[in-house]
Amino acid sequence: MRITVKQASDFLKSRDNFLFLTHQSPDGDTIGSATALCYAIAKLGKKGKVICSDEIDRKYDYLFDGLDNSDFEVQTVVSVDVADVVLLGKLESYKDRIELCVDHHQTNKIDCERLCLFPDSASTAEIVFYIVKELGVEIDAILAEKIYTGVATDTGCFCFANTKADTHRVAAALIECGADIEKVNRKMFEEKSKSCVMLERLALETMEYHCDGKIAMMTVTLDMMEKSGAKENDLNGISSLPRQIEGVLAGVTIKEKDPGVYKVSVRTHAPIDAAVVCEQFGGGGHMRAAGCKISGNLQERKQEIVKAVEKQL
Amino acid sequence: MRITVKQASDFLKSRDNFLFLTHQSPDGDTIGSATALCYAIAKLGKKGKVICSDEIDRKYDYLFDGLDNSDFEVQTVVSVDVADVVLLGKLESYKDRIELCVDHHQTNKIDCERLCLFPDSASTAEIVFYIVKELGVEIDAILAEKIYTGVATDTGCFCFANTKADTHRVAAALIECGADIEKVNRKMFEEKSKSCVMLERLALETMEYHCDGKIAMMTVTLDMMEKSGAKENDLNGISSLPRQIEGVLAGVTIKEKDPGVYKVSVRTHAPIDAAVVCEQFGGGGHMRAAGCKISGNLQERKQEIVKAVEKQL
Repeated sequence: MRITVKQASDFLKSRDNFLFLTHQSPDGDTIGSATALCYAIAKLGKKGKVICSDEIDRKYDYLFDGLDNSDFEVQTVVSVDVADVVLLGKLESYKDRIELCVDHHQTNKIDCERLCLFPDSASTAEIVFYIVKELGVEIDAILAEKIYTGVATDTGCFCFANTKADTHRVAAALIECGADIEKVNRKMFEEKSKSCVMLERLALETMEYHCDGKIAMMTVTLDMMEKSGAKENDLNGISSLPRQIEGVLAGVTIKEKDPGVYKVSVRTHAPIDAAVVCEQFGGGGHMRAAGCKISGNLQERKQEIVKAVEKQL
Repeated sequence: MRITVKQASDFLKSRDNFLFLTHQSPDGDTIGSATALCYAIAKLGKKGKVICSDEIDRKYDYLFDGLDNSDFEVQTVVSVDVADVVLLGKLESYKDRIELCVDHHQTNKIDCERLCLFPDSASTAEIVFYIVKELGVEIDAILAEKIYTGVATDTGCFCFANTKADTHRVAAALIECGADIEKVNRKMFEEKSKSCVMLERLALETMEYHCDGKIAMMTVTLDMMEKSGAKENDLNGISSLPRQIEGVLAGVTIKEKDPGVYKVSVRTHAPIDAAVVCEQFGGGGHMRAAGCKISGNLQERKQEIVKAVEKQL
């Protein structure tokens, strides 16, 4: 059942000993939103902890500042920024215990008695901001930083099209609460690992253009991953590179997952529908970002992808 | 004499036939702010035009939307986002005719009867927003986009430390006025030219680390500029790469200007003072960003730069 921010806040006030579940491949929004709620309920004298199926990158360490690590028996399970129980990964065993789900994904599929879902919100953290205000908890600098992290990361630092007037207003309020945005933005948007920089260089060397520069295609091999020491995480930023090039309507990144097996990420601008391209290879996704798997002769597969995009030009 | 936003607005209302001067090596703030003022006074039935010493990159073309190109005799000269008359470049001949100066640079040196200067403002566009409101002109989508461009570019899309709560509030208001931030952000922050991507790859190949990875040094040669077809403009983004690497406290970019003559750009994090490093080579600048020129044996000069940074470690 869909519930309001007020109802979510009332529920949190009425319970104790919380477990906040985040989604696998954790990002700034799931971790920032969950740690913010955990920090806020502690201010009301309650206990809570935040867990994740996957290892949390150490760049998010500061989000755990101010959280109490003492042990307690979990009584109330809350999922935060999790659109589907399969995204809980190894924590899927908790799926039937979720009593409150706080999320902003239009596609949310979690079957839960209390669904605090606002798809117009650019981030879950923005919803958490209103819940925390409703809780009557003072937003100090530590709390403001956790919420700001979610708001900023899910909007690519206010750059993506999901950024709304209200997103900026929430950011303004958080800065006034003392959020150190210089620290957060540096960690989230500026800092790159040496491995990531090296992988970027190796990947850029493979850039090839097709159809008068309307398609840009880049390949990341297992050999490059080994040479650079890059991790799966480092690949996220790289997939956006081909589409960033002026005149490119379809940016394709091909990542070797196992010898001869490749994961393809397609990012497009209008009029190319990325999902239609990927469906031809058994994949799918959204209009502007989709994926599929390919295997076999890479040169042949690349030609097929080019042809699939060409059909829409 | 320092004047208020209200006084700047009253001055604009009292005059006509404006020439808006922008600074050389034009950016989104100087062009966005100047075209916004020019568009606003036209709504009051007045004439104006925007000029610049240098060629304006075509990515800023949309900022000239809605401006009237008809000819008129200039009566009132206004400088916009220009901190010093030397930054007018070829337009310096207008320096004694400036009757209003709108700017946000703390270091502003323009000697003018009406100085509308607010150094706490992250961009000149933010000041223009308040002037336009004071003028009583309706902020339509076209006007909102011009102002938003200045606000967003001078803050690195709300990422830099100069971003304040009020910056976000102005952005919120502009979005509500209809600014197409998806279009603007794509042009300003996402899109890279093919030449730029190629130059980035070539430059990354030269990355060298010193002092346990605390110094990262990158070289851009004339040969790379020719090979990639990159322009001076394309170098701006590249200079920020070395400092972005995790653990790096001093990021150094060395650009060959003439055979054997190099311009060095030093970007630092605390505790390294970039200006102190560059002063040793006859240059200068700010604590976090400074520059100098070097020539002669590049390997020897590089070693000297490393030593200059090491002194502060």
